[in-house]
Amino acid sequence: MYTLITGGTVVNATGSSRADVLIEDEKIAAVLEPGSNILGTAFLAGIDRVIDATGKYVIPGGIDAHTHMEMPFGGTFASDTFETGTRAAAWGGTTTIIDFAVQYAGEDVLTQFARWHEKAAGKCAIDYAFHQIIGGVNDVSLAAMDTLIDEGVSSFKLFMAYKDVFLSDDGQIVQAMQTASHNGGLLMMHAENGSVIDLLQKQALERGETDPVYHGLTRPWQTEEEATYRAIRLAELTGAPLYVVHVSAKQAAMRIAEARDTGQNVFGETCPQYLWLSLEDQLGAPGFEGSKWVCSTPLRPKAHGHQDHMWTSLRTNDLQLVSTDHCPFCMKGQKELGLGDFTKIPNGIGSVEHRLDLIYQGVVTGKISLERWVEICCTTPARMFGMYGKKGVLQPGADADVVVYDPQGKTNISAQTHHMNLDYSAWEGWEIDGHVDTVVSRGLVVVDDGEYFGHAGHGQYIKRGLSQYLI
Amino acid sequence: MYTLITGGTVVNATGSSRADVLIEDEKIAAVLEPGSNILGTAFLAGIDRVIDATGKYVIPGGIDAHTHMEMPFGGTFASDTFETGTRAAAWGGTTTIIDFAVQYAGEDVLTQFARWHEKAAGKCAIDYAFHQIIGGVNDVSLAAMDTLIDEGVSSFKLFMAYKDVFLSDDGQIVQAMQTASHNGGLLMMHAENGSVIDLLQKQALERGETDPVYHGLTRPWQTEEEATYRAIRLAELTGAPLYVVHVSAKQAAMRIAEARDTGQNVFGETCPQYLWLSLEDQLGAPGFEGSKWVCSTPLRPKAHGHQDHMWTSLRTNDLQLVSTDHCPFCMKGQKELGLGDFTKIPNGIGSVEHRLDLIYQGVVTGKISLERWVEICCTTPARMFGMYGKKGVLQPGADADVVVYDPQGKTNISAQTHHMNLDYSAWEGWEIDGHVDTVVSRGLVVVDDGEYFGHAGHGQYIKRGLSQYLI
Amino acid sequence: MYTLITGGTVVNATGSSRADVLIEDEKIAAVLEPGSNILGTAFLAGIDRVIDATGKYVIPGGIDAHTHMEMPFGGTFASDTFETGTRAAAWGGTTTIIDFAVQYAGEDVLTQFARWHEKAAGKCAIDYAFHQIIGGVNDVSLAAMDTLIDEGVSSFKLFMAYKDVFLSDDGQIVQAMQTASHNGGLLMMHAENGSVIDLLQKQALERGETDPVYHGLTRPWQTEEEATYRAIRLAELTGAPLYVVHVSAKQAAMRIAEARDTGQNVFGETCPQYLWLSLEDQLGAPGFEGSKWVCSTPLRPKAHGHQDHMWTSLRTNDLQLVSTDHCPFCMKGQKELGLGDFTKIPNGIGSVEHRLDLIYQGVVTGKISLERWVEICCTTPARMFGMYGKKGVLQPGADADVVVYDPQGKTNISAQTHHMNLDYSAWEGWEIDGHVDTVVSRGLVVVDDGEYFGHAGHGQYIKRGLSQYLI
Amino acid sequence: MYTLITGGTVVNATGSSRADVLIEDEKIAAVLEPGSNILGTAFLAGIDRVIDATGKYVIPGGIDAHTHMEMPFGGTFASDTFETGTRAAAWGGTTTIIDFAVQYAGEDVLTQFARWHEKAAGKCAIDYAFHQIIGGVNDVSLAAMDTLIDEGVSSFKLFMAYKDVFLSDDGQIVQAMQTASHNGGLLMMHAENGSVIDLLQKQALERGETDPVYHGLTRPWQTEEEATYRAIRLAELTGAPLYVVHVSAKQAAMRIAEARDTGQNVFGETCPQYLWLSLEDQLGAPGFEGSKWVCSTPLRPKAHGHQDHMWTSLRTNDLQLVSTDHCPFCMKGQKELGLGDFTKIPNGIGSVEHRLDLIYQGVVTGKISLERWVEICCTTPARMFGMYGKKGVLQPGADADVVVYDPQGKTNISAQTHHMNLDYSAWEGWEIDGHVDTVVSRGLVVVDDGEYFGHAGHGQYIKRGLSQYLI
Ligand SMILES: [Zn+2]
Ligand SMILES: [Zn+2]
Ligand SMILES: [Zn+2]
Ligand SMILES: [Zn+2]
Ligand SMILES: [Zn+2]
Ligand SMILES: [Zn+2]
Ligand SMILES: [Zn+2]
Ligand SMILES: [Zn+2]
Repeated sequence: MYTLITGGTVVNATGSSRADVLIEDEKIAAVLEPGSNILGTAFLAGIDRVIDATGKYVIPGGIDAHTHMEMPFGGTFASDTFETGTRAAAWGGTTTIIDFAVQYAGEDVLTQFARWHEKAAGKCAIDYAFHQIIGGVNDVSLAAMDTLIDEGVSSFKLFMAYKDVFLSDDGQIVQAMQTASHNGGLLMMHAENGSVIDLLQKQALERGETDPVYHGLTRPWQTEEEATYRAIRLAELTGAPLYVVHVSAKQAAMRIAEARDTGQNVFGETCPQYLWLSLEDQLGAPGFEGSKWVCSTPLRPKAHGHQDHMWTSLRTNDLQLVSTDHCPFCMKGQKELGLGDFTKIPNGIGSVEHRLDLIYQGVVTGKISLERWVEICCTTPARMFGMYGKKGVLQPGADADVVVYDPQGKTNISAQTHHMNLDYSAWEGWEIDGHVDTVVSRGLVVVDDGEYFGHAGHGQYIKRGLSQYLI
Repeated sequence: MYTLITGGTVVNATGSSRADVLIEDEKIAAVLEPGSNILGTAFLAGIDRVIDATGKYVIPGGIDAHTHMEMPFGGTFASDTFETGTRAAAWGGTTTIIDFAVQYAGEDVLTQFARWHEKAAGKCAIDYAFHQIIGGVNDVSLAAMDTLIDEGVSSFKLFMAYKDVFLSDDGQIVQAMQTASHNGGLLMMHAENGSVIDLLQKQALERGETDPVYHGLTRPWQTEEEATYRAIRLAELTGAPLYVVHVSAKQAAMRIAEARDTGQNVFGETCPQYLWLSLEDQLGAPGFEGSKWVCSTPLRPKAHGHQDHMWTSLRTNDLQLVSTDHCPFCMKGQKELGLGDFTKIPNGIGSVEHRLDLIYQGVVTGKISLERWVEICCTTPARMFGMYGKKGVLQPGADADVVVYDPQGKTNISAQTHHMNLDYSAWEGWEIDGHVDTVVSRGLVVVDDGEYFGHAGHGQYIKRGLSQYLI
Repeated sequence: MYTLITGGTVVNATGSSRADVLIEDEKIAAVLEPGSNILGTAFLAGIDRVIDATGKYVIPGGIDAHTHMEMPFGGTFASDTFETGTRAAAWGGTTTIIDFAVQYAGEDVLTQFARWHEKAAGKCAIDYAFHQIIGGVNDVSLAAMDTLIDEGVSSFKLFMAYKDVFLSDDGQIVQAMQTASHNGGLLMMHAENGSVIDLLQKQALERGETDPVYHGLTRPWQTEEEATYRAIRLAELTGAPLYVVHVSAKQAAMRIAEARDTGQNVFGETCPQYLWLSLEDQLGAPGFEGSKWVCSTPLRPKAHGHQDHMWTSLRTNDLQLVSTDHCPFCMKGQKELGLGDFTKIPNGIGSVEHRLDLIYQGVVTGKISLERWVEICCTTPARMFGMYGKKGVLQPGADADVVVYDPQGKTNISAQTHHMNLDYSAWEGWEIDGHVDTVVSRGLVVVDDGEYFGHAGHGQYIKRGLSQYLI
Repeated sequence: MYTLITGGTVVNATGSSRADVLIEDEKIAAVLEPGSNILGTAFLAGIDRVIDATGKYVIPGGIDAHTHMEMPFGGTFASDTFETGTRAAAWGGTTTIIDFAVQYAGEDVLTQFARWHEKAAGKCAIDYAFHQIIGGVNDVSLAAMDTLIDEGVSSFKLFMAYKDVFLSDDGQIVQAMQTASHNGGLLMMHAENGSVIDLLQKQALERGETDPVYHGLTRPWQTEEEATYRAIRLAELTGAPLYVVHVSAKQAAMRIAEARDTGQNVFGETCPQYLWLSLEDQLGAPGFEGSKWVCSTPLRPKAHGHQDHMWTSLRTNDLQLVSTDHCPFCMKGQKELGLGDFTKIPNGIGSVEHRLDLIYQGVVTGKISLERWVEICCTTPARMFGMYGKKGVLQPGADADVVVYDPQGKTNISAQTHHMNLDYSAWEGWEIDGHVDTVVSRGLVVVDDGEYFGHAGHGQYIKRGLSQYLI
């Protein structure tokens, strides 16, 4: 079966050009001069489906490298299942997610990994892969890291916060890094100083400071910057590559930039909320409204320029990619748990559906280039996490994950219309000057012209290789 | 006419994959799955030439963004003409050069530009473009910068050294930068503090220090770093993008990295000689031997780690590309002019033939990745200087400039065998663990299997657009 | 003849304590426990004068290391002569000035030095010394630097601005630094990029921007920072110690701090105007009013925190002392020369009378400590410029230069009441929460209780030694 | 009773001068011009003791701000008691120590403080004060910090290493810093990442690496630098002043310098061993010999320039003072505990007797100035820890703690001749080009011409005030 996407402008990480993309079954077969007659009239006549991309961008399917579908947290679960979450992702032009399998302290890593496989199997609309959270570093979990590499899991996330749940102490971090430096894995780090945050939270509650804004005020930039720097230094000590998740403080981004200047393999992602939203405008909204934007690291004051610096860091490649950290909790029954005590608000924002759009708006407003949009949303995630070639690029042999994006279209974001299982939108009322028109996942058109043609189970598990981004 | 390069591994800036490349006349028509049958048997049978690239790399033709063919300097001329120089370049897999049209102080820019066009017209084996050296900033030359943009010259080189010949003072530099910040041009800078160097040279000669090594010792890293920093600061003041040529001091590279960390459009190139050669081993060779490696900026002490730092900067993208600064002078009759007075040695090294090979050796020895090799030698030069799409990438619609590179081959460099018009080699005796097998220039096979099929005049002038690399 | 200052708190650079100071003729004879009976009743009865300093601070006489009495500039002369200027200094508790002998380009250094000696001889109310401005670096002036060391002039000021008047190019700067690194002299630098400023001024005038505020806007912080960094780097290259005069830009101060962190002998002074005044409030005053505050380096925007950073740098000893750069020009007949063309406004502010008071106000407002006030106004100037022991400290054997300062007093600054020969005050209306009560110069009470007892010719020339502050 | 020190050169932190010092009972009564006749013949005749300091330096008595007399550690006790240790200190010109009262985790702070008072009472040859180690931060110990301020203890030491013994986690550190930022106390920090060190030690032992050199190799500079930076950042977060003890890694010193550049109250001490000794030459000595130099932080490789950088930092005042961290353990019965397991070697070196001499050798060899020697050994310790005026300076009213130091003398260091209770010397065979001739403690000559005249119980407890060094 052949599909031809014709007339569009193919955008990749280094530039863009007019070209046609020919899909054979689940793979890209060729990239061709537009209107080329080399295929022959007969062949062209036999093509099953022609997608007219005239005036539109043709890009590799988006890869969201940081999601938490149905993740258990604080007695509740992230509201999107693998089914609802991947369907919403598809709607937004994301054709691969990397979700986090979770080992809490005390659990067995491989058992947990198997459990996550069970959750996802047969449910996903798009392809999926796993990182593994290591909530308890010990000899068994360290050994499991080697096993997981063979299972296609080449990245391992540790936490410097959330004591007794996820937190690894510095010695444990060094052990995991030593393991990664030997087996080629990539160490991902939630870099916040949990010990200090726990204290500041306790003190805030004692002072009667219970509103959502205190979530941000008890996680000052110093707690992120210090932890980021510590992680970088320990990575340097062990020779392990390091990937810092959800960077939001400009000072943390500066530390990452410094480390890279010395040639260290240190990388960082940021998320749409740290690019567009702020402590003043969203987290500090009156009453309990701010709970919608409680996530960690927190939204930061725009008065101090954190958001601008995130955009600059994306431009300079001091941050390498944008993920969503999709971890949705409904207001009703979930966020509400933190009424009267901000520390009980489940942490997370749901954006898996809107990443491509929200970052494209940065192209529209001159913050990044068109090519950089593709690089940070599609190409680098594939390279960083060992899927490039199969994913992240439009070239012969690659999976036919393709998005046709219309720069003349418009997208209005609202809980009324979004496809995530979430009773509010963190982006309610946002208008995007662009639109995801058509989404192809491994050759299957799953979204086209506002209609959904995908199905649970189409998505396959991706065994990832080692990072292709190390220097 | 069709040519098919088949069975190879196509390498681009972000990754590599098995793919066939189909050329129609002077352009790439398609990139296809290897062994694909979509073209049909009839079409395949009619292909004029099939190049078997099995086991080899297929990459975009190299772009050498810094050459000085037949440049007048100190009463003599660089020994390669456009004819001999571009032919040698082709032998080495370079299919485009950007040469420098020269306005010396007192001359008219546009007259000089026309003169350079005359020199090159009908002589070149491969495509060529021009930067313009502005040796005398004044109202006329500033106005000429606007004209030249329309002529396809979007980059302008100033000098902070060579008083009364090239040197612009800081006020003149600011004027040129103001012009560039308005017309979109890219300011290139030879960043050495000429005033200090002139003094140190005079003092050295007064002390009887006349050997070639004093060329290096009178240009200490401080003279490069200071000038680099000054250029960066003036660029920041004016908003102009800046490209620092032939970076050799690690401290200068650090300044560039710092500026980029703040989001400034500051870029830097280095050259093969600053990656592999040193003041101790080459420039400091006994007697007059060291004159072979007299170039500016000079070779630097490896004891201080400059060379290692250049590689690191290439890895981290704090330096963006590698050019040769090809400016060959024969020992006999040219370098000899400086016997007994190192300041009279013509400055320059001839490497235009060896750039791809010498940097590939960095892949072999683990200094950079295969993709980065292509990026810094082919793709970024095209993007930096406004030729991407036409050059620098293997995609439909691009010029069919292609190199088939054999990682199993060997290349021995020697004046006995090289094709540059130069009576010695700066790289005599170097062995490269790779080999340029086939070179295609705009669809024409110019080199294949050790034979040359090109001709003077095949190369065309490229009108370049504005830089596609600005952030 | 004996004078006893009794009951006060002696403040020095490291701390303060209650102590009496006994003066014998022109020197300090002893520092004693207050009320000590070791002197014996007979001796005490024979003391000629007792100054009651109860409740007051007793400090070494102030040293203003940067003044320009009757300096020729732009066709006019600074309005204070050595007679009027030193008398005003005495009123304000300054008992030593270091003025600048001036060699303009084309003049002979030693001839000029002799001329300055003539101007000052027999005129000064307080002791005085000279720095030498070298406006024309050449073999003769370099040789003169050695001679001047023997004459008690151990510091030499160069300029990176004022082309054809004062400006030295970088090669000349290096020559002077080489000389200083051999003879032990201290290189002082006016660090502004004159070439860029000249251009920006010309462009501003062409745009019809003629008001005083453009004096500041055409000397942006980059012109100061760049020049400061360049001077630091050249000093590093030559091994010469460097003292940057009138630092006003925070970025320049940061460069000095960085250099000191590496152990380089780099120092900086700032002036009261850069601590308290700003481009917005003073230089940008409506109409021609701003001309009162035209000085170079210029007042800088407080919105960018320059003034705060100057205070911080004084606290951290990244700037070492405060001088006035006293260079007064009257509004009438002098500043007026620049009506309609800000580049013709004579550059300078008159503050020699108010330095101790203005910096003491920083103690009152918590910006620096009491000890630091004495250190930056009295002790470090003596050490920096080779007079310590004789000046800058209250200890036996030192010159009896003493100020009794009343922290309960008040000082109102106004052109109506000041003693400088200046028809306006840059500090009109300022109230200081302290007061200079008594000033002793080499044993002579020159000011006491609002009356002046000094006389022209009391002040002697101080032959200075080499800097005592180098590390 | 009167004592007159005559004919010497009085050296203080800013300079030196010829002066006589008159002592009345326990205090300094006057500093006088040498040979002054103001005292009168009769008075002079009645002076009880005249000390001829001709050709010698007269300096304030040394203050060793970091000692551990008879400290319990790992089942044994530091071998010097308050009696033997303070006597040895006196021999070396130190007239005040600040020792550490110790709260181990689980103990009560005030009880422990009282215990330390008991140990010292009636035993000391010279004056003494206390810092308090807080080994267990909790509400009781935080409250005790306020009480201790009133008891003359204004500095509190925490540890980032030594789990279950001393270590505070980051939240505890923040709590203690919050307390200090309110009560004016100074937070002292043992800055090493204990969690990482514990792991590296365990891994080393598992590999059979048991020799003393592994003590250094398992505490790489990263563990010190990271902890130092973390402490600085937490201090910045809380507004507390911070004093980092025993800095030995150049990278840690750089972090301190950076923090000071921003105006933060961050200080650091180093110790003689980090200035003169190294991992290669001492700690790495063959066999068990290296155990003599096992201390924490460890001796560092001189190949990496740590020692040079410590000297530079002292010059630039990025480190403020030199203490000994005197914590002696005999080879026999104590260091031996670690035979076959370096982690069991008691940590510490005994130097309390040699600090003035060892740092004076830095003056002789041109590393620091004479004045800086006095500043870092005598004056700044007094200012830093709230004793200035009474201690640290030669001025009327100050305690008569005076050392006459002979720059023509020689001192040979050896366990044969030293006065510490220690069966070896870390400095065996060192020759110092200077000699402590006479030591006066609160008016009593305790050492003179190689004889000891002091006695246990002469030393008094000093109630210290708040730091006088904060900016
Ligand atoms: Zn996280
Ligand atoms: Zn997450
Ligand atoms: Zn050049
Ligand atoms: Zn060149
Ligand atoms: Zn000046
Ligand atoms: Zn001046
Ligand atoms: Zn310690
Ligand atoms: Zn200690």
